[in-house]
Amino acid sequence: MVNVSDSKNYKVIGTNPIRHDGYDKVTGRAIYGADVKLPGLIWASIVRSPNAHAVIKNVDTSEAEKIDGVFAVMTGKDLPQQEDQFIDHGEGTENVAWSSENIMATQKVLYKGHAVAAVAAIDRYVADYAASKVKVEYDLLDAVTNVEDATKEGAPILLDSLVGDHLRKKVKNTNVASITRHEFGDPDKAFANAENVVERTFTLQMVHQGYIEPHNATAHWDEEDRIKVWTSTQGAFPVRTSTAAILKLDVSRVKVTPLEIGGGFGGKIPVYLEPVVSILSRKSGRPVKAVMERSSVFQASGPAPGGTITVKMGTDKDANIVAAESSIKLEAGGFPGSAVGAAVQCIFAAYDIPNTRIDGFDIVVNKPKSAAYRAPGSPQAAFATETVSDELARIHGMDPIDFRLQNASKEGTRRADGVVFPKVGNVEVLEAAKKSDHWNSDLGTPAKGRVRGRGVASGYWFNVGLKSTVNLSVNSDGSVVLVEGSSDIGGTRTSISMQAAEILGIEVENFRPSVGDTETAGYADVTGGSRTTYATGFAAVKAAENLIEVLKDRCAIIWSLDKNDIDFEDGTFFASKDPELKFTFKELASNLDNTGGPAASSGSVDLESAGGAFGTHIVDVDVDTETGKTDIARYTVLQDVGTAIYPAYVRGQMAGGAVQGIGWALNEEYYMKDDGTQANVSYLDYRMPTALDLPNIETIIVEVPNPGHPFGVRGVGEVPICPPVGAIGNALHDALGKRFYDSPMKPGRILNVLGKISD
Amino acid sequence: MVNVSDSKNYKVIGTNPIRHDGYDKVTGRAIYGADVKLPGLIWASIVRSPNAHAVIKNVDTSEAEKIDGVFAVMTGKDLPQQEDQFIDHGEGTENVAWSSENIMATQKVLYKGHAVAAVAAIDRYVADYAASKVKVEYDLLDAVTNVEDATKEGAPILLDSLVGDHLRKKVKNTNVASITRHEFGDPDKAFANAENVVERTFTLQMVHQGYIEPHNATAHWDEEDRIKVWTSTQGAFPVRTSTAAILKLDVSRVKVTPLEIGGGFGGKIPVYLEPVVSILSRKSGRPVKAVMERSSVFQASGPAPGGTITVKMGTDKDANIVAAESSIKLEAGGFPGSAVGAAVQCIFAAYDIPNTRIDGFDIVVNKPKSAAYRAPGSPQAAFATETVSDELARIHGMDPIDFRLQNASKEGTRRADGVVFPKVGNVEVLEAAKKSDHWNSDLGTPAKGRVRGRGVASGYWFNVGLKSTVNLSVNSDGSVVLVEGSSDIGGTRTSISMQAAEILGIEVENFRPSVGDTETAGYADVTGGSRTTYATGFAAVKAAENLIEVLKDRCAIIWSLDKNDIDFEDGTFFASKDPELKFTFKELASNLDNTGGPAASSGSVDLESAGGAFGTHIVDVDVDTETGKTDIARYTVLQDVGTAIYPAYVRGQMAGGAVQGIGWALNEEYYMKDDGTQANVSYLDYRMPTALDLPNIETIIVEVPNPGHPFGVRGVGEVPICPPVGAIGNALHDALGKRFYDSPMKPGRILNVLGKISD
Repeated sequence: MVNVSDSKNYKVIGTNPIRHDGYDKVTGRAIYGADVKLPGLIWASIVRSPNAHAVIKNVDTSEAEKIDGVFAVMTGKDLPQQEDQFIDHGEGTENVAWSSENIMATQKVLYKGHAVAAVAAIDRYVADYAASKVKVEYDLLDAVTNVEDATKEGAPILLDSLVGDHLRKKVKNTNVASITRHEFGDPDKAFANAENVVERTFTLQMVHQGYIEPHNATAHWDEEDRIKVWTSTQGAFPVRTSTAAILKLDVSRVKVTPLEIGGGFGGKIPVYLEPVVSILSRKSGRPVKAVMERSSVFQASGPAPGGTITVKMGTDKDANIVAAESSIKLEAGGFPGSAVGAAVQCIFAAYDIPNTRIDGFDIVVNKPKSAAYRAPGSPQAAFATETVSDELARIHGMDPIDFRLQNASKEGTRRADGVVFPKVGNVEVLEAAKKSDHWNSDLGTPAKGRVRGRGVASGYWFNVGLKSTVNLSVNSDGSVVLVEGSSDIGGTRTSISMQAAEILGIEVENFRPSVGDTETAGYADVTGGSRTTYATGFAAVKAAENLIEVLKDRCAIIWSLDKNDIDFEDGTFFASKDPELKFTFKELASNLDNTGGPAASSGSVDLESAGGAFGTHIVDVDVDTETGKTDIARYTVLQDVGTAIYPAYVRGQMAGGAVQGIGWALNEEYYMKDDGTQANVSYLDYRMPTALDLPNIETIIVEVPNPGHPFGVRGVGEVPICPPVGAIGNALHDALGKRFYDSPMKPGRILNVLGKISD
Repeated sequence: MVNVSDSKNYKVIGTNPIRHDGYDKVTGRAIYGADVKLPGLIWASIVRSPNAHAVIKNVDTSEAEKIDGVFAVMTGKDLPQQEDQFIDHGEGTENVAWSSENIMATQKVLYKGHAVAAVAAIDRYVADYAASKVKVEYDLLDAVTNVEDATKEGAPILLDSLVGDHLRKKVKNTNVASITRHEFGDPDKAFANAENVVERTFTLQMVHQGYIEPHNATAHWDEEDRIKVWTSTQGAFPVRTSTAAILKLDVSRVKVTPLEIGGGFGGKIPVYLEPVVSILSRKSGRPVKAVMERSSVFQASGPAPGGTITVKMGTDKDANIVAAESSIKLEAGGFPGSAVGAAVQCIFAAYDIPNTRIDGFDIVVNKPKSAAYRAPGSPQAAFATETVSDELARIHGMDPIDFRLQNASKEGTRRADGVVFPKVGNVEVLEAAKKSDHWNSDLGTPAKGRVRGRGVASGYWFNVGLKSTVNLSVNSDGSVVLVEGSSDIGGTRTSISMQAAEILGIEVENFRPSVGDTETAGYADVTGGSRTTYATGFAAVKAAENLIEVLKDRCAIIWSLDKNDIDFEDGTFFASKDPELKFTFKELASNLDNTGGPAASSGSVDLESAGGAFGTHIVDVDVDTETGKTDIARYTVLQDVGTAIYPAYVRGQMAGGAVQGIGWALNEEYYMKDDGTQANVSYLDYRMPTALDLPNIETIIVEVPNPGHPFGVRGVGEVPICPPVGAIGNALHDALGKRFYDSPMKPGRILNVLGKISD
């Protein structure tokens, strides 16, 4: 195992080589899910509910079936009937019965866009036309679209079958799927003795990951009841698991080929279309493709939950946080399973607090079933904690970074849920923030009519671990073929290869990496949870170490020596007792004939979460007090990345996360109408930041190696979306003297807080 | 290692399950090379020489380049210039300089159909039209199309650069590329003391493998000088090796994806189109596809050599063969490298002869460069040996099977080239032939105007070994994913899986096998030389054994036991000291979570040739003495297959090889015109046997397990093409009382031997 302290001697790690997928992507040659073409391919169109909440009385497909060019029509009754059954799709569990009902409703529709039927036809136009001829009769019900309304006395109940788990009590006739609590120390007593206590309640709206590429899936169901699926996904193996479970087939009857993916951010872990096109294929005998329209992506995929979060924190007279309490209510959407479980783990993770109590509520509402979105639950939580923390720092008259440093979690700190931190970089990031050019620069003067403020906030995400496999084989020219099962979203073909290259002492340009399908690659869980460079990279290190053993055996054969007399260092195999006998990796690769077959190896891991990572963001905002519009004047992201394998990717992740968080803070929201439906279902109305809206995002990489990884890698992708909402709220306070407890802090809300318009 | 003597307890081996590729093939869904479609794909057309021998004075592509829709035009000068360099493509070596010149001529054309230029255009029609506008000026030369003419004094010399290797003497200005000799004992003295000596000279004509699917290749050359190639081939890795060498690139710059293959029989090992479409892609920036027309397949791929073979054999008074001598002159085609090297190893392999001398001549002629064809060189050799053997048996008044049995090679017999046989099944096959229903049945009476005769002949092929890799991984439902690099021609997805299934104690239906590309599968040499079920199967056994070790580790973790206390038998893992603790393979597969990552393994081999195999064929022919037409009245194939993994495939190989040999014996030949060009370049004129021409071919499997393979597998595919020409010649003698020394024994030749027409 490579020693973490060797880090400064790395030859490959820390460089920015040309990425292996680069040319294919910039030339447009890369194949995405929507590009899939097969002989005899037909198109699916999904019939979706126009209502947010209704009982399905009848689905009449007869007219659609008669249309020329229609091959098959299905309803939810064509999916196998399911009992409650919980399976692990890699990032959390799902109840297959609910997943199936979410994919196509049989009893009730629970949100606008909920699928009720589907048509497969000769082309997309015929399919859409036929879908419009499917007649669905509904009994309308009142809709609830936020956690407050959903938990009111007499609220309409979404799921008759739901038995809520409320602190281990079973509760029927509820929209609260679960209430969980983490408690540590004696928070009540600590609050009673605290010098200062601040308690605030925050609201957040549902937001979407906003990936450019819509969901897509193509399937062919063959005569042996085996299904081939092609899709753009964060994980081919989890798609196989979910699709097989929903179709009640053994996993090995489903083969999933992952195509390139145009963004996922957590939203491309669940399956939506795969079981539908599979059933349509079984009915038609043809391969069937479906691609969502953008409005369906908004209304029927898995956005991030909004909700209500109350945070109460108390300090002693020396500004030590002595107690913290929170109640986190997140929208699950139409079926249970919001990000509240992760929010609970993250909400106070940046602080070392001896007495805490955290309650998490998972609440169903008439909105699309929420899914993971980059550090699910943590940005919402951080908005609340980082605002209260900022208030407390002001009460103590402290620099907000000093306040955070004084209370920072570190090695040995116990998270409320019981996890004790190994070496983490929270302190180092805060210290770097304090020393940063941005923090030490004057605010400067904004344009006329604008006021400027500066804010800071921290954020946290744990690495998930899970399963990964990497296979290596050696070409005679000294190059190495690498096959992984992890979808490449953030550049993992290169970052995984770099880790194997470092071990083997060769250049990463000699690698030929690819992402295999479920019948060529070894098993891998999702690309998500900031796990891929960490866990799949770990598997690559193991595979490379195994390959060195294989190659030492070959040297022993070639030199007629005992294997124990063969050493490997710095890319060279040599005989410890005879300096004349040595091979570079490349020389040995060309001399493997007659030494026992091709040289190949495999490495696999099944890892626990390891450590996690912290970031601190500094932002200067300019607010137009006339219009309420906020511009980002300057933005700096600091983050402990453990070890930056590919610094340019790392900076891209840091900047990209910040940009998504900025959108969340200032503009993005599911704007719900009174009838429970979303008003803004296109990118014209759902306002995401573009390059023109933003300055260059400055990034400062902090490296505190993760002791749980051979190169010290920490997850990078998720942390940077956590601080922005809080940091921007704090900057707005700095600029305007007003606190913001509701997100997004859009122009109307700012004018409202300023008293210029009413709510 | 599984003990060969366990053979009767096999559960999977010896059964005939539904083949994994069956449905895809019978429904037409399987994807062959000609089916490849890519965005922006354009078509290539090859400009071929109309002359058999000429100097290229000038190639003018200007007119073709001007045609609308033409993207690129190339000549041989666009291929990198090559020095002589010998590389191993898996079944023999090739000189890259000659391969390159064969793929596209720059100096001379050496056969009709020799490529001289190529065009890539928007579609096939434009490409063909533009190709017709390429103007090539030739200086015509006399052509030589057989070994006698090519070796005459003053014969036109094909290759100025050829330095012949004649028994280690260097010779210039020759068409004889090499003369090799294997000598053993003192044949001259032995012949002098022999009681009976028979010496005959045989001629054979060039024949084609006659695969249904024409050669095809698609390539895309990208901006990083990496090439993706899609092709129907017997070996993706050898295609990579050859293409990279011809294009002077490192192998890892070429990725080869093998598609399904519609027959190869040895002819789909060399590359013809791959470097051409690669260069056209580099020039056009587009992916480029080429598919040969049938006439080009005949004229410009790699048929089996014709030639002249002299065999002299002597017996003592007790009918023991005491000496044998042979001179084998085979047509290499336009460039050196006929099958003579293999013919030399096979020609006397069925006999235990103490004194032998074999001379092999490799002779260039103005015909397409010959390639491997099912047991290359051995059918030609067997025709000669088995005819002479039959004559000697008659001289001694012996049953021809008894004569062969008395002289049969067996364990310990030394082949003239030095190989000493391990346990082989020659005697067992002859004994089975002697006991067979066919051999013991009456000849019966043919239809009016016909005469009937019976013949018998033996044949031999060695297994080649070479490199193979198999990767396995376990799905949670207990199924196993298998990836091999060996093209599946004869059903190897199933036959390889069966060997792993036998080791793992599970059903082969639980396997999901696939043939990977050069960047997902581990290295494998060609599917050819009867090596795949033997060598890749051996790799599968190793992979399965490695997987059992991996899974024992997992049991040890689950049960908290030492690994040494875990046993595996008959598909069940169990604790040796606690009978309560046990897992079936499937149970264990579903319990691997948290035991250390996905369970996967790899196995690879680099094997020597192992043993080889023998067959004996019995044939009854009916000859119409009026027309000379011969019909097969009954045909029985007996063969030692070691262990029949999948008996139905084995019988298919045995029958299929016999049918190809029957075509060779009775009808097939490259019919050459005086100008050195082939007259019969379509299946209308090149007469192959169809199902309507033949009776059911009876097959008798003999199993003498190969001691060099864990299940005793011997190569099956090649042996059955070796005996037919000799067996049919002997049957014709039995029917007509006349010996045939020239193949094919077509109606005209029969009438000629019968004195009914002149030559």
